[in-house]
Amino acid sequence: MLHFDHYMPTRIIFGPGKLEELGKTPFLPKGKNAMVVIGESGIMLQQGYLARVQGYLSEHGVRSIVFDKIKPNPESDSVEEATRICREKKVDFIVGLGGGSTIDAAKAIALLATNEGELWDYVASGTGKNKTAANAALPIVAIPTTAGTGSEVTPGSVITKTGSAEKIGIRHESMYPAIALVDPTLMMSMPPFLTACTGMDAFFHAVESYLSTVRSPNSDLLALEAIHLICHYLPRAVEEGSDEESRIALAWASTAAGLSLSQAVAISQHSMEHALSAFYPELPHGAGLTMLAKAYFTFMTERDLERLGDLTMAMADSIGLDLPEDQLTEAFVPILEEFIRSIGLRDLKLSDYGMKREDIPALTETAFQTMGRLFEITPTEMTAEDVNTIFEKAFE
Amino acid sequence: MLHFDHYMPTRIIFGPGKLEELGKTPFLPKGKNAMVVIGESGIMLQQGYLARVQGYLSEHGVRSIVFDKIKPNPESDSVEEATRICREKKVDFIVGLGGGSTIDAAKAIALLATNEGELWDYVASGTGKNKTAANAALPIVAIPTTAGTGSEVTPGSVITKTGSAEKIGIRHESMYPAIALVDPTLMMSMPPFLTACTGMDAFFHAVESYLSTVRSPNSDLLALEAIHLICHYLPRAVEEGSDEESRIALAWASTAAGLSLSQAVAISQHSMEHALSAFYPELPHGAGLTMLAKAYFTFMTERDLERLGDLTMAMADSIGLDLPEDQLTEAFVPILEEFIRSIGLRDLKLSDYGMKREDIPALTETAFQTMGRLFEITPTEMTAEDVNTIFEKAFE
Repeated sequence: MLHFDHYMPTRIIFGPGKLEELGKTPFLPKGKNAMVVIGESGIMLQQGYLARVQGYLSEHGVRSIVFDKIKPNPESDSVEEATRICREKKVDFIVGLGGGSTIDAAKAIALLATNEGELWDYVASGTGKNKTAANAALPIVAIPTTAGTGSEVTPGSVITKTGSAEKIGIRHESMYPAIALVDPTLMMSMPPFLTACTGMDAFFHAVESYLSTVRSPNSDLLALEAIHLICHYLPRAVEEGSDEESRIALAWASTAAGLSLSQAVAISQHSMEHALSAFYPELPHGAGLTMLAKAYFTFMTERDLERLGDLTMAMADSIGLDLPEDQLTEAFVPILEEFIRSIGLRDLKLSDYGMKREDIPALTETAFQTMGRLFEITPTEMTAEDVNTIFEKAFE
Repeated sequence: MLHFDHYMPTRIIFGPGKLEELGKTPFLPKGKNAMVVIGESGIMLQQGYLARVQGYLSEHGVRSIVFDKIKPNPESDSVEEATRICREKKVDFIVGLGGGSTIDAAKAIALLATNEGELWDYVASGTGKNKTAANAALPIVAIPTTAGTGSEVTPGSVITKTGSAEKIGIRHESMYPAIALVDPTLMMSMPPFLTACTGMDAFFHAVESYLSTVRSPNSDLLALEAIHLICHYLPRAVEEGSDEESRIALAWASTAAGLSLSQAVAISQHSMEHALSAFYPELPHGAGLTMLAKAYFTFMTERDLERLGDLTMAMADSIGLDLPEDQLTEAFVPILEEFIRSIGLRDLKLSDYGMKREDIPALTETAFQTMGRLFEITPTEMTAEDVNTIFEKAFE
């Protein structure tokens, strides 16, 4: 019996060169004061993206202030600092310009700016107080510069509580960006490793959405499309970053995976990775997922999940491989390993990011405590022992 | 170069039995006065759907008045009559319950209720005055009882100007319904001919969206999904109306085709059909499209449109036919004819609905004057002579 809800009110403006439309769009949120949120690395300045965004805003008569303290795996204290500035300066809307961390931070800032208290008041698990935000977030304009997160079209934001190992997703419908401006030319300068890691983030969004028990026919379509495109184009973009066709395809694939995720939600691989990157903040999210994948999906294969076979088919099809139908489920992990090799991520090691075997029980506990809800929509039951074993195999 | 915009803010609540959620949803538009718009046939009363809808509204403390004068191919005078009542009774939102005509009428009523003047002031072609509506429409709740129109997820409404042969689409972003409540069980009672005609309407929405020059990757995905499902399930639903699996699949297919249409817009086959059903109001829209299709798509095949081949593949795949790649484009029309036969519509004749050969020049003129814009996004140029010829061949 097919039942689903669908809601995705973000206006997507997609295409190479479309950043310019920021200066012309009649759909810019109302108000004359914006905050532009960027990462602390300085890349948005060096690339000239920040100047362009501020210039386009001023064509609408919008003054903008810049908040530039967002780290990879963004933390609650910087969200709260930005929020204080928003309230003080009466900011009308937020522009998130950068990768997933920046856009997630922008969305959390937007929510907290219109609601009292601290960010963790509105977090539903871990030490969060699980309050319902009384007010809608400030309107958000999301401008991704990586092809991975899909955060520009989801109502979620993943933030780490400062001084803790809680990395948790906050979800509120009003956090759907008003505008997602996806300009693949902004992604051309990503170096190969970042290209590969962000691409794998999008890939696993699609894979997990497709396997989630709250999937819908539309989230399925988008997930398979994203997997197909990523398998075909990610190796090319890693090899040759200036290949525009690949960048365009991967930009759409990551937005498509985000759309899928917005309707279907990720499963427990994401709970496990969030625990990892909360413990080891230097670990890029996509790299963490990639290192978990072999052990995680071997476990899934042993549960004989038929839908894994559909994913194999999408991957095999895009690399021109023809497989007999009865081997599709078991072929998922080997094909995935070969794909990971083809984008240069085969030699990633969790120990290189500081993981120790003795951390595993705490990682497992964190995965359940902070993002336990994702286990509920995972298509097979998983005990703490199962999760321990997967962490162990991934560590080996 | 891939460029597209995407915006579809309607909240879809989909599934058998979901009508009940109308009584519980926290997303009902604000306000205590609703107008429920239904067709003049009395079916919504006989089936008990109207009583259920009014009952669910009253669970929210919403009083509803009923407007029951909507004809198939709805006319501007009934829209205007309903609008006067809305203003007088201070109606807060509109519920459209029925087929495409009813939902289209509900959407036009919603727009005119908040804007001054007559409906044709806001029509962009024909004798329309092409004014821009200054105010957003009243919020709309769309509850389709047929699987065809997809109007529950589009910003458009097609209305005939009373006393004329102008049947024109009006499009305004605020006419996207707030809620599309798609409950396939409401479609179980459709008789075979209505099932077939509405199914073909959805089919051609998908086909035309896929061919339109303003398509996008997401509209393509949805179009192919709809075509696949309709080819597989429509013959079954025509044969056995109580087959729930078919009804569910077709309900999703028509919503998917509507979603595709909302992003990509129909092409000139729709301009031609609107001329036909404006001239001959007894002609069901889906039947009109079906009778045009052989001549229209033969013309397209002669233009060697490669994308027709993709559509053939989607159709062939769903009926288990394997075709060589170089024959896909030419195979579209024969497979379509066979499909039309399989749903019992092979013997439809335009003359049975009152068409005369001498009407053709006037039909062609009307197609260009009222819906000329669709010719601009048709993938090949079409002259008045081409359109005349297609009408002639369809009439033979």
